[in-house]
Amino acid sequence: MQHRPVFFVSDRTGITAETLGRSMMTQFDGIEFSFTRLPFLDTPEKMSEAIERINTVLEDERVRPIVFSTLVNAELLEQLRRECKGLLLDFFDAFNAPLEAELGIKAAHVMGRSHGIGNFANYMARIEALNYALNNDDGVSTKNYPTADIVLIGVSRTGKTPTSLFLALQFGIHAANYPLTDEDLHSRQLPKPLQPFSDKLFGLTIDPDRLQQIRSERRPNSRYATSTQCQLEVDAVESLYRAEGVRYLNTTNMSIEEISTTILQQAGLKRRLFA
Amino acid sequence: MQHRPVFFVSDRTGITAETLGRSMMTQFDGIEFSFTRLPFLDTPEKMSEAIERINTVLEDERVRPIVFSTLVNAELLEQLRRECKGLLLDFFDAFNAPLEAELGIKAAHVMGRSHGIGNFANYMARIEALNYALNNDDGVSTKNYPTADIVLIGVSRTGKTPTSLFLALQFGIHAANYPLTDEDLHSRQLPKPLQPFSDKLFGLTIDPDRLQQIRSERRPNSRYATSTQCQLEVDAVESLYRAEGVRYLNTTNMSIEEISTTILQQAGLKRRLFA
Repeated sequence: MQHRPVFFVSDRTGITAETLGRSMMTQFDGIEFSFTRLPFLDTPEKMSEAIERINTVLEDERVRPIVFSTLVNAELLEQLRRECKGLLLDFFDAFNAPLEAELGIKAAHVMGRSHGIGNFANYMARIEALNYALNNDDGVSTKNYPTADIVLIGVSRTGKTPTSLFLALQFGIHAANYPLTDEDLHSRQLPKPLQPFSDKLFGLTIDPDRLQQIRSERRPNSRYATSTQCQLEVDAVESLYRAEGVRYLNTTNMSIEEISTTILQQAGLKRRLFA
Repeated sequence: MQHRPVFFVSDRTGITAETLGRSMMTQFDGIEFSFTRLPFLDTPEKMSEAIERINTVLEDERVRPIVFSTLVNAELLEQLRRECKGLLLDFFDAFNAPLEAELGIKAAHVMGRSHGIGNFANYMARIEALNYALNNDDGVSTKNYPTADIVLIGVSRTGKTPTSLFLALQFGIHAANYPLTDEDLHSRQLPKPLQPFSDKLFGLTIDPDRLQQIRSERRPNSRYATSTQCQLEVDAVESLYRAEGVRYLNTTNMSIEEISTTILQQAGLKRRLFA
């Protein structure tokens, strides 16, 4: 199989370059890619070292590396363009010319602007949201629900906790979550503590097979992980959502990003921060 | 001030398009941008609605919207290109031609590949890592440290918990964290339970002024938040790190992404998942 080294080069974390670059490479079949991220290259010296590393790969493996970059600093980009022997694809640079033409002004090429003035406020909004999620996880208390942006409900192992934490970290949303137990499902109505907050509820559900698969990883051979139990709980919880008019989402095969983004959109929540 | 609407269009979550697009727009001064994300546009019908919304903004505000997109589906991209009157900038499309030329094959344009076969394994790796971080937060127990990838240490409010959770969610890293108390700092040595794991320790520190600012938001007018106390703790903890040879990082003005990425790199950790 053809092999091809891929580098992600950035003067910041390089997370975005890597996310986008990996996503693009999944579109090319029959090639084995190896991925290396080179973050925080914010001086000519660090950039030189990175370029040498990339060029060495070319010499050693005799195949031209692909280099995805997100470089704000125009001089570092110029250095990379001049000295690096890989195929250089810079996500910022690709659109600078059309944006400058459209807006009629020049890009500033200043580092770290998205972490500038708004940084402290953003940091605190994120920490507050994260504390909110941690303090209101798994139904430990409902006393803070009046200040919740959203309250996720569902049976065990449908992704309530990771979704709450992701909503906090990525969007600054105050998300509580509350597990629906067998007892709640038998009563066929919302648990008392949730009733005053019905407009903030958002249900999660999942295909029974997938639920069984997840629960089996967690507690193999338990009653909790049987096919019958999973089927019963999912049927009951979906009936409850419909009876009570609770919006809900089937999370089977969705990543935590997809679940969170969908909830944000369907519940019409306003994000409080932009990472 | 000039105003300009910006849209992020995607057949997936659009998080990457928004992150990259917002980052680019911070480089253009003197323009007030308004941002709208339109995710999960995965059918021609949904795309039509989105295009109508964008074109309506053009007619109402008489200014041409900027549209950043990440569309895997070539037909949806073609539809957008044909019907949308905004300035269209697609991050994937920008590099498809050079990549196809370089690799000598055509891109597959298949949706959701990054959430395909590897999805369940990725999902479980993430959930496991998240459970690990939650169960080993704030020094509640050290019994799982033998399976930790890293143990973050530091005084209160230096970002240990959010960093542990971010390392879990983004990279699948098993990160525990342990708070260093006044008592630990007075003893001038690592707490006993940490001593066997010195090679897994990673210290966080922060400028005393910033620490005071963060603690004051949390508990205003407490001794804990005084300038003297913050200064003392920071001095003591940095001395301890140096004396014990613990790697450490000053997190002042760093976002949680930047802290996590730096630790990943400096500690030489291998990420276990790719979101």
